[in-house]
Amino acid sequence: MHMSKSKNIFTGKVLTLNVDTVTLPNGVTIDLEIVRHPGAAAVVPLKDNGMVVLIKQLRHAAGGFIYEIPAGKLDRGEDPLHCAARELEEEIGYVAGRLERLTSILTAPGFTDEVIHIYKATGLTAGRQQLDRDEILEVLEISLEEAIKMIEAGTIRDAKTIVGLQLVSRGR
Amino acid sequence: MHMSKSKNIFTGKVLTLNVDTVTLPNGVTIDLEIVRHPGAAAVVPLKDNGMVVLIKQLRHAAGGFIYEIPAGKLDRGEDPLHCAARELEEEIGYVAGRLERLTSILTAPGFTDEVIHIYKATGLTAGRQQLDRDEILEVLEISLEEAIKMIEAGTIRDAKTIVGLQLVSRGR
Repeated sequence: MHMSKSKNIFTGKVLTLNVDTVTLPNGVTIDLEIVRHPGAAAVVPLKDNGMVVLIKQLRHAAGGFIYEIPAGKLDRGEDPLHCAARELEEEIGYVAGRLERLTSILTAPGFTDEVIHIYKATGLTAGRQQLDRDEILEVLEISLEEAIKMIEAGTIRDAKTIVGLQLVSRGR
Repeated sequence: MHMSKSKNIFTGKVLTLNVDTVTLPNGVTIDLEIVRHPGAAAVVPLKDNGMVVLIKQLRHAAGGFIYEIPAGKLDRGEDPLHCAARELEEEIGYVAGRLERLTSILTAPGFTDEVIHIYKATGLTAGRQQLDRDEILEVLEISLEEAIKMIEAGTIRDAKTIVGLQLVSRGR
């Protein structure tokens, strides 16, 4: 795979859109629309009593409120672990005693390079919630079992949230 | 939530990029970069002997080959079930006796409206593989157990693939 050209279409606050000209191993040359994204970290907050802390967040792209785990974009050069800890406290007001990486996912590799690093947070203690002005969300606690049922019922639809909850449920 | 303006930045073969001006319920007005995507269908092919059929596909955005389940974009107005059946035959050469919807995921609701509808295919019989000229992939069969281990080891990183395999593994 060889990229002969990368044409910048747009550079915004969050996204960069390029059209890349790529020659595949079979000799075919194609133009690919690629969204460059800084990457993100997300975190499954698991309390000692088996409850998980989710947010119900307003998402314009989803047309309303959706269930998610706390998450946020990486600042330039930021360690994903640091980002996960930061979002955990800012979005839901918890500090983690322990943060373990579960996995890192490619959200939509057909058109974006976005990677989300997913962590499990345990040993939770109270910190200070501090929402950005463009974050509209409510915090809720449910049992991990109930969360898995919400995935199976199609009520939880966010990819990073499903992956994180399922890995925690499998004991990772 | 009220959208007062949607500025079109780019309309490509696959993606449309808009910058939408949105007023949140708290009165804050923000500009959001939104990638409009036609949506997609993906399918977990489960054989009677407990093996799943995956592809190892070259993805420019991921910088190399990644493990995935068969998937493809919806044609305009296409039923996702039809799309899943089509991609199953085109990408791996199988026809499903039965296709059941597992769930529908939001891949990256922070910046795109993409939805992937995920199915389970069983009762597989031989059809005719027919790859597009820009699809570089190999087909492999592994046990569902092995696939779950590859998720836990971080070898399978694609979000739709993890969600589909985990739901099938839980018996859905």
